[in-house]
Amino acid sequence: MKQLNVGLLGIGTVGGGTYTVLTRNAAEITRRTGVAINVVQVADKNIELAKKVTSGNVDITDDAFATVSNPNVDVVVELIGGYGLSKQLVLKAIENGKHVVTANKALLALHGNEIFAAAQAKGVIVAFEAAVAGGIPIIKALREGLGANKIEWVAGIINGTTNFILTEMREKGLAYQDVIGEAQRLGYAEADPTFDVEGIDAAHKLTIMSAIAFGMPMKFEQAYTEGITKLQQTDMQYAEELGYRVKLLGITKRTEKGVELRVHPTLISEKRLIANVNGAMNAVVVKGDAVGPTLYYGAGAGAEPTASAVVADLMDVARLSSASVEQRVPYLAFQPNSVADLPVLPISEINSAYYLRLRARDKPGVLAGVTKILADKNISIDAMLQKEPADNESEADIVILTHVTVEKNMDAGIAEIEALPAIVGKLVKIRMEELGR
Amino acid sequence: MKQLNVGLLGIGTVGGGTYTVLTRNAAEITRRTGVAINVVQVADKNIELAKKVTSGNVDITDDAFATVSNPNVDVVVELIGGYGLSKQLVLKAIENGKHVVTANKALLALHGNEIFAAAQAKGVIVAFEAAVAGGIPIIKALREGLGANKIEWVAGIINGTTNFILTEMREKGLAYQDVIGEAQRLGYAEADPTFDVEGIDAAHKLTIMSAIAFGMPMKFEQAYTEGITKLQQTDMQYAEELGYRVKLLGITKRTEKGVELRVHPTLISEKRLIANVNGAMNAVVVKGDAVGPTLYYGAGAGAEPTASAVVADLMDVARLSSASVEQRVPYLAFQPNSVADLPVLPISEINSAYYLRLRARDKPGVLAGVTKILADKNISIDAMLQKEPADNESEADIVILTHVTVEKNMDAGIAEIEALPAIVGKLVKIRMEELGR
Repeated sequence: MKQLNVGLLGIGTVGGGTYTVLTRNAAEITRRTGVAINVVQVADKNIELAKKVTSGNVDITDDAFATVSNPNVDVVVELIGGYGLSKQLVLKAIENGKHVVTANKALLALHGNEIFAAAQAKGVIVAFEAAVAGGIPIIKALREGLGANKIEWVAGIINGTTNFILTEMREKGLAYQDVIGEAQRLGYAEADPTFDVEGIDAAHKLTIMSAIAFGMPMKFEQAYTEGITKLQQTDMQYAEELGYRVKLLGITKRTEKGVELRVHPTLISEKRLIANVNGAMNAVVVKGDAVGPTLYYGAGAGAEPTASAVVADLMDVARLSSASVEQRVPYLAFQPNSVADLPVLPISEINSAYYLRLRARDKPGVLAGVTKILADKNISIDAMLQKEPADNESEADIVILTHVTVEKNMDAGIAEIEALPAIVGKLVKIRMEELGR
Repeated sequence: MKQLNVGLLGIGTVGGGTYTVLTRNAAEITRRTGVAINVVQVADKNIELAKKVTSGNVDITDDAFATVSNPNVDVVVELIGGYGLSKQLVLKAIENGKHVVTANKALLALHGNEIFAAAQAKGVIVAFEAAVAGGIPIIKALREGLGANKIEWVAGIINGTTNFILTEMREKGLAYQDVIGEAQRLGYAEADPTFDVEGIDAAHKLTIMSAIAFGMPMKFEQAYTEGITKLQQTDMQYAEELGYRVKLLGITKRTEKGVELRVHPTLISEKRLIANVNGAMNAVVVKGDAVGPTLYYGAGAGAEPTASAVVADLMDVARLSSASVEQRVPYLAFQPNSVADLPVLPISEINSAYYLRLRARDKPGVLAGVTKILADKNISIDAMLQKEPADNESEADIVILTHVTVEKNMDAGIAEIEALPAIVGKLVKIRMEELGR
């Protein structure tokens, strides 16, 4: 039987899951592919762990460079993470003519352009289904299943940590600060949760999706990221009253002016399926011009869900390692000479609807002043919520949902509203997405 | 540039959509594939329609056999439907060494085994993404994206007509008979809606999914089908009160005893995403042993959504027409010599939880009699709803939700309950699915 020999870099959570799935489902995988996929070497600094996970059945080294240069290895699975050592290893593996499977979103978002160019020159596969949304086969959907479409936009809950936190905040009425500790205790958030809660991890994944949806290079450095740490319970409750949920979305859109590439808290109508994706689960909505909106939902992290994607990539490599370049799907889904250097719009140039919360002194004419500013800027109001002042208070909250306008126009309006004498403090602004059409 | 020449059989809704998408997105499709996909001939009895749709840019014939034998045609797209003429045409195309793309679920569910065997002998591709759930790339997810998993079960809303009807029944409190006419007027149901409302169309699609999920032949003739025509508003309301929705689901499960293959109305907790799939939309949940449950949602029918899947298949053919058999995904996702003739269980042998509604005379001891019968059969009760008799009535509804048991055991219990003197008429039985784990 044909063999595919795997060198596994990293035997931590995902590496261990990959080894387990390859072993447990070996018969099923061979029934499908006609190929025996064997792990021939594991590289990990933690030799003892590697021995334990592989039950002593596999050659183990603490030198990952030995694995990427091992002549018995056909394909290197990079599960180390980060973008220092992992980049060197992936480039060395490619230089040695080995195919690469990686779950490393940071590496691809920052250095994908260089890595794919190197792989193209060597004629090897670099597969990365596990880099976005764990076990959900969204990379394959974007690169192949939806290939007939001009993809208009992609929007996703692509970070389980933040979705867990937002779900807890909503269901228990707690503040961000009250939930983050629980998330850390339960293993949903890391000791330093910055990458997750500030939207950086989501921006890595979004960058990859934008590249393969539109056929453009990775442009992570131009992504706009805004996390959930400043999100207030008050706004989640007002959103709820108005029929919306607040989710951390990664959104990328192709427009006449350029590409929108942004991660931020977003109001979504509770009628949308994606608004009802709770806990640590992930979901991505893709809008194609022919198919309309389609949604993909599942576990976005964890040992075996991520391994499911890694092993699916290995199965593709098993089929296509002997194929010509034309018989493979291109790295970024588009032929290398057709990848277009589309401009990414600064956040001030994006189009969005908005949720605004302002605090106003309870006196006549306040609302007239606010609505006049919006009308002068051609911003129409979709809904409004005016609260009674609480007992012993002379100030009240006003919540306004606007129709779509360009962000710089909204920001100019907000500045004028904040300058009104009856307005107290700063406005809260949260972007809203329709996601239906 | 490399060319792929298409012969299109049928220029109706999906055929027209396919021509439109191929034409409108020609540049994007070539950017992706590096291949120009050209329709070189259209075969349709309605020559005038074909001329109109193609604006006179394509050779047209009313003889589909001319197209499947046309030496300029590389791939035949069969969009005629049915399984008489279409079967002859597909087999002839294969005999002539042409690849085939089809949206025809009935053809594949009934004659797929014969067609794939013929295609294998000739070394041609038969692709069928459009045959299940329209534009949702569920076939690719099952055959490739989830290939690392031992797939445990698949459950889907795979018929838009019935989901539209059930959504209307729920939202407007109407009876089936009151909704079917509206569905026909709006084009969601055909003049003779039997195939849809009796679950036959869903069973065709389910048969295809079971084959590629488990690696078994198509076994449509052993599928159990129960439609929605007898579903009563009363039961939808009681289900709602208990936190459930009623959906027509196609369910296939791999068990120790054999494969479950069944289409019927099903109670699903409203907390599940799939319970909130409304209108004519489709969604499929797939449970893999590694990835857990994943869900795929989108338009399951219509010109361009279905065309999206047809054209994606053409793009796969463009890549892989020159590839060897080993470099292609096998027809049923599993290597032909690994397809296993798994037995399909009769409905009496399946395992399910149940919703039961009984009508009882309002006198002491009724409930004790019912619950004793269930206890004697080891059927545990998950929830119960006992209604007061209406004014001037001496009979009341009792609703019972059971835990999982084997269907023949449930049916035996139902027969005993119906024989109790205090029970009026027949019990209503609706199956329930957890769909979470």
